[in-house]
Amino acid sequence: MDREHIKKLLEDVQAGKVDVQAAMDKFRALPYDDLGFAKIDTHRAIRRGFPEVIFCEGKTPDQVSQIVRKMLEHTDIILGMRASEEVHLAVCEVAENVIYNPSARAIIVGNKPEPKTKGTVLVISAGTADMPTSEEAAITAEVMGNRVERLTDVGVAGVHRLLRNVEQIQKATVLIVVAGMEGALPGVVAGLVDKPVIGVPTSVGYGASFGGVCALLTMLNSCAPGMGVMNIDNGFGAGYLATLINRLAG
Amino acid sequence: MDREHIKKLLEDVQAGKVDVQAAMDKFRALPYDDLGFAKIDTHRAIRRGFPEVIFCEGKTPDQVSQIVRKMLEHTDIILGMRASEEVHLAVCEVAENVIYNPSARAIIVGNKPEPKTKGTVLVISAGTADMPTSEEAAITAEVMGNRVERLTDVGVAGVHRLLRNVEQIQKATVLIVVAGMEGALPGVVAGLVDKPVIGVPTSVGYGASFGGVCALLTMLNSCAPGMGVMNIDNGFGAGYLATLINRLAG
Amino acid sequence: MDREHIKKLLEDVQAGKVDVQAAMDKFRALPYDDLGFAKIDTHRAIRRGFPEVIFCEGKTPDQVSQIVRKMLEHTDIILGMRASEEVHLAVCEVAENVIYNPSARAIIVGNKPEPKTKGTVLVISAGTADMPTSEEAAITAEVMGNRVERLTDVGVAGVHRLLRNVEQIQKATVLIVVAGMEGALPGVVAGLVDKPVIGVPTSVGYGASFGGVCALLTMLNSCAPGMGVMNIDNGFGAGYLATLINRLAG
Amino acid sequence: MDREHIKKLLEDVQAGKVDVQAAMDKFRALPYDDLGFAKIDTHRAIRRGFPEVIFCEGKTPDQVSQIVRKMLEHTDIILGMRASEEVHLAVCEVAENVIYNPSARAIIVGNKPEPKTKGTVLVISAGTADMPTSEEAAITAEVMGNRVERLTDVGVAGVHRLLRNVEQIQKATVLIVVAGMEGALPGVVAGLVDKPVIGVPTSVGYGASFGGVCALLTMLNSCAPGMGVMNIDNGFGAGYLATLINRLAG
Amino acid sequence: MDREHIKKLLEDVQAGKVDVQAAMDKFRALPYDDLGFAKIDTHRAIRRGFPEVIFCEGKTPDQVSQIVRKMLEHTDIILGMRASEEVHLAVCEVAENVIYNPSARAIIVGNKPEPKTKGTVLVISAGTADMPTSEEAAITAEVMGNRVERLTDVGVAGVHRLLRNVEQIQKATVLIVVAGMEGALPGVVAGLVDKPVIGVPTSVGYGASFGGVCALLTMLNSCAPGMGVMNIDNGFGAGYLATLINRLAG
Amino acid sequence: MDREHIKKLLEDVQAGKVDVQAAMDKFRALPYDDLGFAKIDTHRAIRRGFPEVIFCEGKTPDQVSQIVRKMLEHTDIILGMRASEEVHLAVCEVAENVIYNPSARAIIVGNKPEPKTKGTVLVISAGTADMPTSEEAAITAEVMGNRVERLTDVGVAGVHRLLRNVEQIQKATVLIVVAGMEGALPGVVAGLVDKPVIGVPTSVGYGASFGGVCALLTMLNSCAPGMGVMNIDNGFGAGYLATLINRLAG
Amino acid sequence: MDREHIKKLLEDVQAGKVDVQAAMDKFRALPYDDLGFAKIDTHRAIRRGFPEVIFCEGKTPDQVSQIVRKMLEHTDIILGMRASEEVHLAVCEVAENVIYNPSARAIIVGNKPEPKTKGTVLVISAGTADMPTSEEAAITAEVMGNRVERLTDVGVAGVHRLLRNVEQIQKATVLIVVAGMEGALPGVVAGLVDKPVIGVPTSVGYGASFGGVCALLTMLNSCAPGMGVMNIDNGFGAGYLATLINRLAG
Amino acid sequence: MDREHIKKLLEDVQAGKVDVQAAMDKFRALPYDDLGFAKIDTHRAIRRGFPEVIFCEGKTPDQVSQIVRKMLEHTDIILGMRASEEVHLAVCEVAENVIYNPSARAIIVGNKPEPKTKGTVLVISAGTADMPTSEEAAITAEVMGNRVERLTDVGVAGVHRLLRNVEQIQKATVLIVVAGMEGALPGVVAGLVDKPVIGVPTSVGYGASFGGVCALLTMLNSCAPGMGVMNIDNGFGAGYLATLINRLAG
Repeated sequence: MDREHIKKLLEDVQAGKVDVQAAMDKFRALPYDDLGFAKIDTHRAIRRGFPEVIFCEGKTPDQVSQIVRKMLEHTDIILGMRASEEVHLAVCEVAENVIYNPSARAIIVGNKPEPKTKGTVLVISAGTADMPTSEEAAITAEVMGNRVERLTDVGVAGVHRLLRNVEQIQKATVLIVVAGMEGALPGVVAGLVDKPVIGVPTSVGYGASFGGVCALLTMLNSCAPGMGVMNIDNGFGAGYLATLINRLAG
Repeated sequence: MDREHIKKLLEDVQAGKVDVQAAMDKFRALPYDDLGFAKIDTHRAIRRGFPEVIFCEGKTPDQVSQIVRKMLEHTDIILGMRASEEVHLAVCEVAENVIYNPSARAIIVGNKPEPKTKGTVLVISAGTADMPTSEEAAITAEVMGNRVERLTDVGVAGVHRLLRNVEQIQKATVLIVVAGMEGALPGVVAGLVDKPVIGVPTSVGYGASFGGVCALLTMLNSCAPGMGVMNIDNGFGAGYLATLINRLAG
Repeated sequence: MDREHIKKLLEDVQAGKVDVQAAMDKFRALPYDDLGFAKIDTHRAIRRGFPEVIFCEGKTPDQVSQIVRKMLEHTDIILGMRASEEVHLAVCEVAENVIYNPSARAIIVGNKPEPKTKGTVLVISAGTADMPTSEEAAITAEVMGNRVERLTDVGVAGVHRLLRNVEQIQKATVLIVVAGMEGALPGVVAGLVDKPVIGVPTSVGYGASFGGVCALLTMLNSCAPGMGVMNIDNGFGAGYLATLINRLAG
Repeated sequence: MDREHIKKLLEDVQAGKVDVQAAMDKFRALPYDDLGFAKIDTHRAIRRGFPEVIFCEGKTPDQVSQIVRKMLEHTDIILGMRASEEVHLAVCEVAENVIYNPSARAIIVGNKPEPKTKGTVLVISAGTADMPTSEEAAITAEVMGNRVERLTDVGVAGVHRLLRNVEQIQKATVLIVVAGMEGALPGVVAGLVDKPVIGVPTSVGYGASFGGVCALLTMLNSCAPGMGVMNIDNGFGAGYLATLINRLAG
Repeated sequence: MDREHIKKLLEDVQAGKVDVQAAMDKFRALPYDDLGFAKIDTHRAIRRGFPEVIFCEGKTPDQVSQIVRKMLEHTDIILGMRASEEVHLAVCEVAENVIYNPSARAIIVGNKPEPKTKGTVLVISAGTADMPTSEEAAITAEVMGNRVERLTDVGVAGVHRLLRNVEQIQKATVLIVVAGMEGALPGVVAGLVDKPVIGVPTSVGYGASFGGVCALLTMLNSCAPGMGVMNIDNGFGAGYLATLINRLAG
Repeated sequence: MDREHIKKLLEDVQAGKVDVQAAMDKFRALPYDDLGFAKIDTHRAIRRGFPEVIFCEGKTPDQVSQIVRKMLEHTDIILGMRASEEVHLAVCEVAENVIYNPSARAIIVGNKPEPKTKGTVLVISAGTADMPTSEEAAITAEVMGNRVERLTDVGVAGVHRLLRNVEQIQKATVLIVVAGMEGALPGVVAGLVDKPVIGVPTSVGYGASFGGVCALLTMLNSCAPGMGVMNIDNGFGAGYLATLINRLAG
Repeated sequence: MDREHIKKLLEDVQAGKVDVQAAMDKFRALPYDDLGFAKIDTHRAIRRGFPEVIFCEGKTPDQVSQIVRKMLEHTDIILGMRASEEVHLAVCEVAENVIYNPSARAIIVGNKPEPKTKGTVLVISAGTADMPTSEEAAITAEVMGNRVERLTDVGVAGVHRLLRNVEQIQKATVLIVVAGMEGALPGVVAGLVDKPVIGVPTSVGYGASFGGVCALLTMLNSCAPGMGVMNIDNGFGAGYLATLINRLAG
Repeated sequence: MDREHIKKLLEDVQAGKVDVQAAMDKFRALPYDDLGFAKIDTHRAIRRGFPEVIFCEGKTPDQVSQIVRKMLEHTDIILGMRASEEVHLAVCEVAENVIYNPSARAIIVGNKPEPKTKGTVLVISAGTADMPTSEEAAITAEVMGNRVERLTDVGVAGVHRLLRNVEQIQKATVLIVVAGMEGALPGVVAGLVDKPVIGVPTSVGYGASFGGVCALLTMLNSCAPGMGVMNIDNGFGAGYLATLINRLAG
């Protein structure tokens, strides 16, 4: 991770440019800002070319806005997930150029970047009620520099609706497939393509859907290989993983 | 249930043909044979036109063969489910004309009847490993007098295999769809037809299939309406319910 | 599904009436209206003789009313399930002749059809608290053209209440049996009749009823064959399946 | 528990009959024999008028036979539950008058006592496969001095078989009702009587019976009050509790 | 159940006092009042000497008050469980002499009877937070005519608090022991007495108590025999079962 | 526990200083105050050198304030856990010198003692959202007389943040490690130290974290030995156990 | 999927080269061989450049060898997963050049291809006992044409063992990380790299590992983004998905 | 962890005693032996004064014996847990002075050390069947240099057996309490002492004990503070944690 750093340090020590105590101190210098309640990894954005991401759930609006203010010293694009309207308002106090998507509960501070990848991330959702999660995935992928397409309400109950879109499906580089209830859509899609599929179960459903457990199990047990599965409602994680994969495609 | 019987009894009492004590006795006469460890409902076969069915699991081979011997006094076709090879041998000791299907673990004593219904029961299985359960369903339906067709190994991982058979699927009167692992097939089939679908989860799978629980939940949560669900591996129940439905069709 | 359509198209191509590109386009013509957030299967109502059904949970009132407005271009009866009072009000803005049943949370737009079937769907509920689900089932069956009867509060704790109604029970063509808590009623009913029984567990209960799981398991494990099981609280699915079965009876 | 003992000891100390150290020692004298791997409560049989009971599962045959040999110094009737054939043979090495019931996996050392109670314990089982557990309950109750009756194979799938025996059912003082699969029988019985019912779920079943969990939940959620529930397959516990209740009746 | 009734009817038919049709009608006369949404078992109170009990959860205040008004035609004491303050107010509209216990959520209409039994029901609770359930049990037992004692906040964390009360515990005829969290108290009590113990798990706790599941399992697995277990928070059921047992003691 | 007491009593009886009845009475004298709804163990604080602790959840504000008032007769420091703002206000009515920490939901009545131990308790939390539980642990340990350090937001997703603090981690005497979501932090810490680690799962997370179950299982299954696990969100228990361990270190 | 095929067919029909009925027949020609118990997708290998894969569990040795013999008509490399020694022997009867890896339970018929990709798949396993699954993944990836590296026994209990290999870890194109017990390794790895990570839980462990459920949940809840999760023990699926991703990298 | 090492290295580089490349190499030198299938942490024994521990489950006998042979180059005492008889025999091939405890499934190579601690670890087990786990804990603690005492078969069903031993219990420095079934013993013990208690649930039990889950939950929910909980059957972990705690006591 910091092998180069260590090597340089060793050479400096050898050359007498740095004494042992100073080397020890440098070695321990923190690559993060410490706010007391949170440690911000300030090197990360530079290192990875990603925007910073804040998971807002379980943090107070005040904590989030402090983190945003600190981050803006190092970065010019920030993504906040699972953000309530209260968090949105608190962030508006400390930043300009804030966009809030209430369905996906996502905040973007700064400008969405132009797509940097050749490939396309296709986000498919089984039903209208799955859109908060599929939008979370799509926004994450967009903010991280992907070309993103969407295909909505094509659940397996009417498999012909899916098959009508088979061309668009087969042209995508990575596919994020979002489904609640019985969660069968990602497996059917994985059977139609030769590309990596990311299955995202949602908590949409009632009774024996058990808050997304049924959809999760269905995806894990899919007999169509080629799919990796995310936690229930984890659109962000799907967008992030799709980005890592899409970058490999150039 | 026996309203006719009661009415006749009351009229006989009124007419003096039967005295009160005799009426009381008749009223209590058992409509079953009691073997001590089991009570055999001997009226049932006559009343319903069904063969007698023995659930062999948890009974000793000797208990099963005693039940078969007793039943043969009242019926000429008996179906034994979940029968081990040991049970099969024990039954051969007390009955002739015994057929054993080791995959479905089913014993038939007597001759399979000719189909009595106009409609067709189509038994679809998702994979080769689901065949013990799908055969249990098919044999049950055949023995109960249905015209039965089979369609095998058409799981949703390659949805085109299913769609190639859409005509046969749409011509059936009742459909039994058997699937393990992610269990998505019955829901996809239910989306293709206007006929009742009976979903049967199987315990085929590993890991998070949890012995059929995943397939069971998938079927219960299917967003395609028109399906009733059976217990895991309950091919017999599916064949029985299909028979009740198919009879309504004439 | 559209074999006729394909055959006709092929003949038109052969006859030179349609050129290849046009055939390709037709082949891809969408049999649904796309509202962006939802795809409406407009052919379905015509094809199946069913009213359109909207599952309202997880959709905004505005989304539902847009769907209703679009559907009214193709159909004159619509059923909305799991509809809140807010959804009801939104639908009243775009449609006339709207009936709302707050207990079953069902909206009917248009006139309930006359019964088209000879057979009868009997909806039995175990307790007063199960009525939202049993009414959901009954209304669905009525709107889909069935003759429907109801039998209420006949749980197995006082099995004589059930037995008093055995004649009505045995005359029905299809039975929907709704029960929460221990969920034993459908199995007892299935033991009394020769007709298909649809078991619907409800989330009524507390403690170890686990929101309907106990009732669901009880129905799946019933030792009385002849029953198919629905998801917890899925009255709509039961009414729909009952319709498919009842139609077979003429 | 030993208040009398303490009072007597105090008086003896006061009277100078016992010195303080001796009192301390007595106070600590063990009311059990210690075999190293097990402590045998030798006062219990005398105190309660019950036979000693050994739960054999998880003990080696040698451990069980050592316990039996030690117990025979204090008691002349011993009950061993969950005993394998190997345990049975080991016990025969150290004791005479040993009876082994392989279905209930119960060993009795010594003579079954004559019934000491006026009331009757009725043990009802739903199916033939439930008999190991129902026999475990019945044998326990017999050995503990109860008048015991049995009613076998009267599950709710054919509720008329149960109702034919309603008189016997209503005459019992305490009822033990044993059922696997959906486990509905105890609730139906509790609705027919004014007497305490002990429900015992068994692990009989398959698929979603989950090794007795379904039957257990059904009994806990029964809407017929008047029932206490035991652990899955715990026939011994049911026989023991029935004894405590039946003794109250004189 | 109504054997006497049937016999008398048969004799009357024989004697010509009643004709067949009338006998048939009588045979079907309903032993309950039908309110449409509920069937009231009006014979039950007379037959059993118990007050009527209404489970109010899942019923509207209006439905409860209608049931109360109807019941008052046949009985002068009614117990309502799981009653909200709204239900309480609705009942006050239609009845006099109404007492409401908000902690136990119980309504009593009419006067609590004098104790009719010689024995004593002792209700023990592990902690202050378990009192709603223990009071539900105690009130039920009192209204059903038992002599009731209470022992509060004696959980096993300080086992000496329990042991200080061992005399009171050992004098009781039946014991109801109520505990949440780890639920160990009933097992410890059952090890101290020779009397039937009714274990009632409560939903008190957090984290891995899973809403009472831990306490429930603990009671089912208790190695102290002599206990029957109720559903989570089912104080009413415990009071009812204690009554059935206590009556046996005279 | 009171062996000394018993010995002294026996000697006094022997010496004639105390008569038998008085000894019996003393023996039964209650070492707690009884408020009806709660029994307060007044000897405990003196005996153990711990402050009294009240678990406020499930108690009314009035009950808590009564308990506090009673306790102040015997102790000058009280800790209240899971206390709402309402409870806080009620306690302020009956006590002075009350501090309330709303995040940890802890009330302290009286002055925090000076650290009495040489060792240090280090409380590590994985994320900002875990702080209510980690603060509950830290406050408990402080009030019980430990030297406490805190390390916040060092989850395993960026393992270098943890490793930067390895010196502080290795110097602690006992470590409390608090984590939600996947709960991997305590196991990684246990692999870095030779000291006892107390793992506390929190309910922080969503979807398949199941309210802390995932974190709980992760800690129980950790392949790094040297860790004991607490219930989900049980910061208090962790602080208490850490105190018992830290005292051993002098 | 077969758009080209359809277009060509339409043109042939237009050109009069193919008549309508023949077109209909061709349209329905099966792209698979039907063995009765299994349908083999013979086009797939050609289309995708992948070897054929047989999931052997639940198939008899005879069924597997028949499938192999049929496949060898179309392909020269076959991979059999979850193959027992019996299956291996049966395959040797019908094929040459068969390699069997008993730990991974994998059969390879034909020669492993040379790596076709530039990128590297790194397969990391947490412990020795996880190797059956990690080998299943590695063999699958190798047979599918990837350059594969392995890193074994680097679980998080000694995080320094992992960190010593950080360079190899950071150079990989795709990472498959296999872990049982608490399953924390994939999350820690995902925090160290910018590449897609595929987490594979194994059933290694005991007690509360619940056959791999703990490891599965840990991976789903990982707070390090960039990971997709497979079913428990699904090494094959991981190797397959890694292949799809690695191909994108050229 | 190796700060001293790094400092020394830096000083040597500064002094020119070590050049940069050599420093880099040293920095990467493995502190473990790599057997291919396992990495042995050879520094650990020296660093911690603990014997090496091998978890044998999931390793072949050959793998275990190779690990033992390698370890004996660095250490003279090895502990092998979960070792089968086959593993024992394989180890005897490569080592002398091997002791095997078949109940605890533990292998000791070398001589048990003399106790090095002043304090005592007391291992309490609830029943005879829990002894494999309690012995695993006791042996681990002994081999790690603790003074160990045992108390067997003192379950809460007869709480007086426990109370008779209260002195021994209160004198221990750390307590390991092992219990299956309902698992209440550790909580009762924790209420009797001021010392750290380690609760170990076992898989002993049947039915709703769910393989130790009930005992595990009971311990996690115990209302007596001062206990940390281990995984089901994890006697080794308990012995290891007890050692870490006992060392603090000097």
